[in-house]
Amino acid sequence: MSKPLDYENLNENVKKCQYAVRGELYLRASELQKEGKKIIFTNVGNPHALGQKPLTFPRQVIALCQAPFLLDDPNVGLVFPADTIARAKHYLSLTSGGLGAYSDSRGVPGVRKEIADFIERRDGYPSDPELIFLTDGASKGVMQILNSIIRGEQDGILVPVPQYPLYSATISLLGGSLVPYYLEETANWGLDIVNLRESVSQARSQGITVRAMVIINPGNPTGQCLSEANLKEVLQFCYQNNLVLLGDEVYQQNIYQDERPFISARKVLMDMGGPISKELQLVSFHTVSKGYWGECGQRGGYFEMTNIPPKTVEEIYKVASISLSPNVPGQIFLGLMVNPPKPGDISYERFVRESKGILESLRRRAQIMTDGFNSCRNVVCNFTEGAMYSFPQIRLPPKAIEAAKKAGKVPDVFYCLKLLEATGISTVPGSGFGQKEGVFHLRTTILPAEEDMPPIMTSFKKFNDEFMEQYEDYRGYSRM
Amino acid sequence: MSKPLDYENLNENVKKCQYAVRGELYLRASELQKEGKKIIFTNVGNPHALGQKPLTFPRQVIALCQAPFLLDDPNVGLVFPADTIARAKHYLSLTSGGLGAYSDSRGVPGVRKEIADFIERRDGYPSDPELIFLTDGASKGVMQILNSIIRGEQDGILVPVPQYPLYSATISLLGGSLVPYYLEETANWGLDIVNLRESVSQARSQGITVRAMVIINPGNPTGQCLSEANLKEVLQFCYQNNLVLLGDEVYQQNIYQDERPFISARKVLMDMGGPISKELQLVSFHTVSKGYWGECGQRGGYFEMTNIPPKTVEEIYKVASISLSPNVPGQIFLGLMVNPPKPGDISYERFVRESKGILESLRRRAQIMTDGFNSCRNVVCNFTEGAMYSFPQIRLPPKAIEAAKKAGKVPDVFYCLKLLEATGISTVPGSGFGQKEGVFHLRTTILPAEEDMPPIMTSFKKFNDEFMEQYEDYRGYSRM
Repeated sequence: MSKPLDYENLNENVKKCQYAVRGELYLRASELQKEGKKIIFTNVGNPHALGQKPLTFPRQVIALCQAPFLLDDPNVGLVFPADTIARAKHYLSLTSGGLGAYSDSRGVPGVRKEIADFIERRDGYPSDPELIFLTDGASKGVMQILNSIIRGEQDGILVPVPQYPLYSATISLLGGSLVPYYLEETANWGLDIVNLRESVSQARSQGITVRAMVIINPGNPTGQCLSEANLKEVLQFCYQNNLVLLGDEVYQQNIYQDERPFISARKVLMDMGGPISKELQLVSFHTVSKGYWGECGQRGGYFEMTNIPPKTVEEIYKVASISLSPNVPGQIFLGLMVNPPKPGDISYERFVRESKGILESLRRRAQIMTDGFNSCRNVVCNFTEGAMYSFPQIRLPPKAIEAAKKAGKVPDVFYCLKLLEATGISTVPGSGFGQKEGVFHLRTTILPAEEDMPPIMTSFKKFNDEFMEQYEDYRGYSRM
Repeated sequence: MSKPLDYENLNENVKKCQYAVRGELYLRASELQKEGKKIIFTNVGNPHALGQKPLTFPRQVIALCQAPFLLDDPNVGLVFPADTIARAKHYLSLTSGGLGAYSDSRGVPGVRKEIADFIERRDGYPSDPELIFLTDGASKGVMQILNSIIRGEQDGILVPVPQYPLYSATISLLGGSLVPYYLEETANWGLDIVNLRESVSQARSQGITVRAMVIINPGNPTGQCLSEANLKEVLQFCYQNNLVLLGDEVYQQNIYQDERPFISARKVLMDMGGPISKELQLVSFHTVSKGYWGECGQRGGYFEMTNIPPKTVEEIYKVASISLSPNVPGQIFLGLMVNPPKPGDISYERFVRESKGILESLRRRAQIMTDGFNSCRNVVCNFTEGAMYSFPQIRLPPKAIEAAKKAGKVPDVFYCLKLLEATGISTVPGSGFGQKEGVFHLRTTILPAEEDMPPIMTSFKKFNDEFMEQYEDYRGYSRM
């Protein structure tokens, strides 16, 4: 007799969801690593796993918060600068019971206040700490908000394609419908409103109520930065179509060009003024995992709600309460991120030096990687304007597509698996993010150490050009 | 026009779920605290919030893991004992990138191995690290497993009444059906199999497919410890009825009597041998939040799967991957909890002294509290055999029930609110956990500092006896 937790009896939504970032390629890479092969894990934006050192200041503060008995140790000054001691005391005073006590389910009130102050400095408009909820990483917040929105399969969520598969997976898990809108590769992955309109009409003709729209800015996996004009169009579109806007802004610190600095959806909305600024429902997400801090393992995130009615905020609070509270150390990290050392603080210079070092290197790495891809046969790649990914298009020859079919693989999976076996470079096939029919990509992070980057790109080029040599018949490429 | 995140448009399952531990009483207590009233928060098992000091050893290790640069500091030995330095190096060597890197979505492999070793020592049977998944607190694991099981409202989960409302809330959120089975207050909250059978038949007659059974051992809110014989009956019952058993064993360290030491459902199952031991599907939960460590804010938990088929384990792994990884510091805490200092280690004596101090005090506090409640008019209370709660029955006079009705409150909510206003003691009304019709309780933790306990109980008795005086008409009590 089949049992409740046998595969055939599982919740179908669980079975349906897909998450390629840790899918077939990652699992194969883990196997190869166990067998002793050197693997370069560029499948997930996980900077410390690729050797990035943590920033010293926040780690000193959190270490002291974890060991509060050190604050009275006469020797503490020998290993911790005075401003880190003061900061640790500050955060402990905000908690009731230190890092070992559950906080309020929305997060430590004092940290939410620091975040509100940061948002106000960033956007020029006050922010209400009562509308900021802390979470175990931004993903958990996205899941919670989508859970409030999605009532069944007739509810649709507009998601960019290519997209970060958190969205497709969560929508499947919650039994909703994903409504794709395509980003324009030839316009550096820009967002085209005409395209958006078509997506919504098509969904409606299929009986779907489109209820929300997701934007990822800077883009994942596509790395583009949205312009202010583009954001304004998006906000107007959401307002006209009665959509909640979910603004995934987790890469806001990582910008590698000067033409389009990061601008938050909330600031653009407030700048617009009038009824839209008081009515459009917006939820914005941020985290300590992304940005140049890269503190992924700490799982600290938050979301900020704009124009969400109090009764709904109460419901979201209630659901947050069921899992008691987000981890408190991750909350302190968020406080530190939005309130870093100031000029004159003992730790200021070191903090700035370390921060600049990482950000400037990421900018160089974005360039090395894009240039590297564009030097390869049948590969074209937009410049990584922000975030931490490169998303080259791989123009697979018909013979390669045929070979993939024979091997029972999606063509880009076939390519990425061969790349992995040949070079140890672990990427994510573009099909995991969604792409136009017949067009193939892969996603890689720009996170390997800067000195490793040239040999990685050489190794990639060697593999790719040989692959193309092998499968090309000189009669044509796959569709452009 | 109503908007997607307006209350009336929210997912109905979100609106339906209730979580009393942070419900009306907690919200009122938070308000009173803001107004300057001294509140004793005994609504939630949150030891550090009530002044319990963290254990020194694990905090030293985690502080060093957060500040790996200290490991090379010539002064580190002045503030950290050598064995904590060795341990920090050990855990850092298990991660790939330290605490700032996402781990495998199931948790750090080396920590899962330490947990498997602990389970083997505890139960006398080997445990497979591949079947142990780490989570951000045990609640997240419970939610994940229930999400795999529940397909719709026809799927029923057997849950004890009174129960910890994580279960009722999660079942509502996932759109399943809660099938209650009553614990026997007169038999010290024992679990009666006849009762269980009746619950299942009744659910089946309503068209519900009962798929899983939850046990909480030691009990929350009831504090009872299940005997080996009782566990055997439960396992057999689950086997006969094709149910997955979910064993919530988060209080396994906290036992305040010697007749019924903690015994895991898994050990009893393995001891039974035969087909049941190879077929019954069991998922067991544990955490660093509960137990005498009380490290709630760190959000470290795990679940262990027994007799769950590999294809299902893969699906659970896939869903875990969507939120990337549980927080890494919480994982290290779990490693430390299952692998504490050993005799001969520098930190051993201090660790044992601190541990004993907390556990022995909790045992005394369990006694003080039970005795205190039983000295009150119209209050009867079973002894807290384990966990960290006392769950006295409050025999409310008919006049009090009438007064509550007039005030528009459930009678136990009415009583607990008055208690809160009069004394600052923040409890959870029994109705938040479920109770038999016409019987009233409250739940309080046994966690206030030992020296605060006598005045708290005096203050409680004074309030209660005056309350009873006020509402009693000497003609009879509420139903016994």
